[in-house]
Amino acid sequence: MENYDVAVIGGGPGGYVAAIRAAQLNKKVVLIEREHLGGICLNWGCIPTKALLKSAELFQKIKHAEEYGIIVGEPQFDFKKIIQRSREISAQLTAGIKFLLKKNKVTLIDGCAAFETNKILNIDNKGQKFSIQADNIIIATGARARSLEGFITDGKQIITSKEAMILDKLPKSLIIVGSGAIGIEFASFYNALGTKVIILEAKKNILQSEDAEISSIVKKIFTKKGIIFYTNVKLLNHTKQRDHLTIEVEIDGVRQQLSSEILLMAIGIVGNTEHLNLERTKIQVEKGHIVTNQFMETSQPGIYAIGNVTAPPWLAHKASHEGIIAAETIAGLKAHPINKQNIAGCTYSFPQIASVGLTEEKAKNAGYDIKIGKFPASANGKALIDGDSEGLIKTIFDAKTGELLGAHLIGTEVTELIQGYVINKTMEGTEADLINTIFPHPTLSEMMGEAVLQAYGRALHIISE
Amino acid sequence: MENYDVAVIGGGPGGYVAAIRAAQLNKKVVLIEREHLGGICLNWGCIPTKALLKSAELFQKIKHAEEYGIIVGEPQFDFKKIIQRSREISAQLTAGIKFLLKKNKVTLIDGCAAFETNKILNIDNKGQKFSIQADNIIIATGARARSLEGFITDGKQIITSKEAMILDKLPKSLIIVGSGAIGIEFASFYNALGTKVIILEAKKNILQSEDAEISSIVKKIFTKKGIIFYTNVKLLNHTKQRDHLTIEVEIDGVRQQLSSEILLMAIGIVGNTEHLNLERTKIQVEKGHIVTNQFMETSQPGIYAIGNVTAPPWLAHKASHEGIIAAETIAGLKAHPINKQNIAGCTYSFPQIASVGLTEEKAKNAGYDIKIGKFPASANGKALIDGDSEGLIKTIFDAKTGELLGAHLIGTEVTELIQGYVINKTMEGTEADLINTIFPHPTLSEMMGEAVLQAYGRALHIISE
Repeated sequence: MENYDVAVIGGGPGGYVAAIRAAQLNKKVVLIEREHLGGICLNWGCIPTKALLKSAELFQKIKHAEEYGIIVGEPQFDFKKIIQRSREISAQLTAGIKFLLKKNKVTLIDGCAAFETNKILNIDNKGQKFSIQADNIIIATGARARSLEGFITDGKQIITSKEAMILDKLPKSLIIVGSGAIGIEFASFYNALGTKVIILEAKKNILQSEDAEISSIVKKIFTKKGIIFYTNVKLLNHTKQRDHLTIEVEIDGVRQQLSSEILLMAIGIVGNTEHLNLERTKIQVEKGHIVTNQFMETSQPGIYAIGNVTAPPWLAHKASHEGIIAAETIAGLKAHPINKQNIAGCTYSFPQIASVGLTEEKAKNAGYDIKIGKFPASANGKALIDGDSEGLIKTIFDAKTGELLGAHLIGTEVTELIQGYVINKTMEGTEADLINTIFPHPTLSEMMGEAVLQAYGRALHIISE
Repeated sequence: MENYDVAVIGGGPGGYVAAIRAAQLNKKVVLIEREHLGGICLNWGCIPTKALLKSAELFQKIKHAEEYGIIVGEPQFDFKKIIQRSREISAQLTAGIKFLLKKNKVTLIDGCAAFETNKILNIDNKGQKFSIQADNIIIATGARARSLEGFITDGKQIITSKEAMILDKLPKSLIIVGSGAIGIEFASFYNALGTKVIILEAKKNILQSEDAEISSIVKKIFTKKGIIFYTNVKLLNHTKQRDHLTIEVEIDGVRQQLSSEILLMAIGIVGNTEHLNLERTKIQVEKGHIVTNQFMETSQPGIYAIGNVTAPPWLAHKASHEGIIAAETIAGLKAHPINKQNIAGCTYSFPQIASVGLTEEKAKNAGYDIKIGKFPASANGKALIDGDSEGLIKTIFDAKTGELLGAHLIGTEVTELIQGYVINKTMEGTEADLINTIFPHPTLSEMMGEAVLQAYGRALHIISE
């Protein structure tokens, strides 16, 4: 039986980064992947969806080309080609991961891994079975879309995000259940191409994890684009017809019927733990996700878990960073634990949404005396130049210490802007550090400085109330 | 004679920010502007050029729309409309400045100001003359394009950047003298629209202030686009014909003739000091620019100078920040002086260039033992998604302390990315702060983290040599 220093189960962004980092630290590493290297993120998540959104963004931009002095006919789109480009980018990046693992001398095993003991994994590669041994094991098996009773996905009429990114043709109508990042991104994509989109949300607000003010702006902008929202929705049942389905729902307690060609379920994820034989270990699972300490070690010494199979937030960049922490801890280094308040969340809709740290509500509930600063994109020169002046940056500071508790951004390219606030938070900075920063002109990033100035009654390019 | 706490001469980004900040600090403020509020930046610089470049960027993007699955005919452009859009954005922002000054209760005076004494300014508004008195005076008169003997601008065939942004029609050919940010931006704009562009540079490298490696990448990419560079060029003389001009130059010591429809002079700027009667004060001028201390005070107590009329770098965001420092110092606050190593420079060409801090050469010359990290855009998922995978991030660290000495970026949207490094430098951070930062995925900003990791032999998505 082959023996390794480190065995990583799962080749998503957490798993492959953990494997590369462990190899950099001179460990003998094996990575076991049951399906596709790159995991959901590269194959069925972050990467392919952003490629779809890029095509839709350009399509929309061309419709407004005349405003920029460009003369061009009404654009059309080739839906199959948009999907194909997305798949090609995904394939290219996945191939890159394979190359990187090989170059880092990580052994790759195709197959499904399950614990025999806390050091031995049984591998099943389509019936071919064998075992390996490892001093340390990192579980990075990720998660899958959560399903709702009575709404079993059939891959055709009731689908998950996976099928939503490889449809044969543009659906005329689409009901999306769930208004998190995934639901909102698909709504943007299909709305931009002309699909009639309805979003159903069980709670009172859409984009639950975002600041309520930002989520209400999203709702307003999306509604103007023709997307229909229903909140306080309870799904009751559905009936399928040949070319569409009808669902029965309760909206604010009132029964109603809605119908569409396709129903997309985007109501969260559940960790992939059931094939691992975790009962052979002391690993604890809570609400479908593996419990770890801040160094990603589970309740079973020597076994680590990272990424979407562990606690939220479920984000690829969190998974990668956890992979580094696990690998460094195994190698005996003193890893830098993650402060979850410093992990940004990004939604690549039109406009984009990005945030880090506490929302206004959470900051208040935590007992902070807060200062809030806001700056609208409409007062920023570069946003005007770009022709994308819809947006807002909102900053929340601890009035006592000046700590940046949270930053909430909506607008063009905010997924790229947010990193500055993340750096500030990671460095435990204050408002003074951001006020002393000279943001280059003319950039969207100037808004980041102004939103801080505004919290302290010093905004330059808007009149503070 | 009206008396003010603070008189600001010049309404550019330094001047109007100084006026607003002084007013926020309860000073009675007057701003004297001889031409247009907003100065060069809003009227004839940063803002209108970026608007031009935005149109050209979209034009180029549409040519590649098919790659994104978008079907559209060959785009044309309406040159007059591109210019018009640029002028409209400039006018809109300039109007905004007027509004902000008014709301902040800053008195506005049209006219040219000159020192009578160190407290009294004589104003000349097209022949209408009067004087005002001020306890503190801030000189923010900016600068103008430097001219070259024997190549006097005529506004038609020999022009400066000002005329280059309001041409009647697209020139067939254009020779640009100077390969700084302004020259490079106009080269990008006119090249994108089909003008035959030649750039002449007196020195050995183009983009003198940038890292030599970055400037050589720019040269390579620009050359591929059809822009012709000549370096080590000395301009000798010129002859004008009806529809073009011929210039005689020495290239690497060899005499040569070049001709084009238009010659654009972009060889730097000279401070606007000559109408101020500075000899009535103790203000010192060096190489055409006013000397100040770190709080922007000149050699004449009570008189401050900010922006392009002072020492380099000549950038709008430096001017604004200096405006804040001058106003706060006048108000008796302890202002935070500028460290010039923390001011980013941005060039909005295709691709963009942005940098902060020391170049490799300067860091070595300063005696630092350095670590260099690089990461190419071609290995970044988001760059691939955007279809803009040409670019590089280069970081330079002090090997001893881990201080980020410099960061040099080329690629799409790097003018927006650079702020994160600026925040890190302003906070006196180290490589560890950037390594511990979780850059969101998938973003271009992930390259910023990888370029740091690479300096320390830890890059994840490329193989370090």
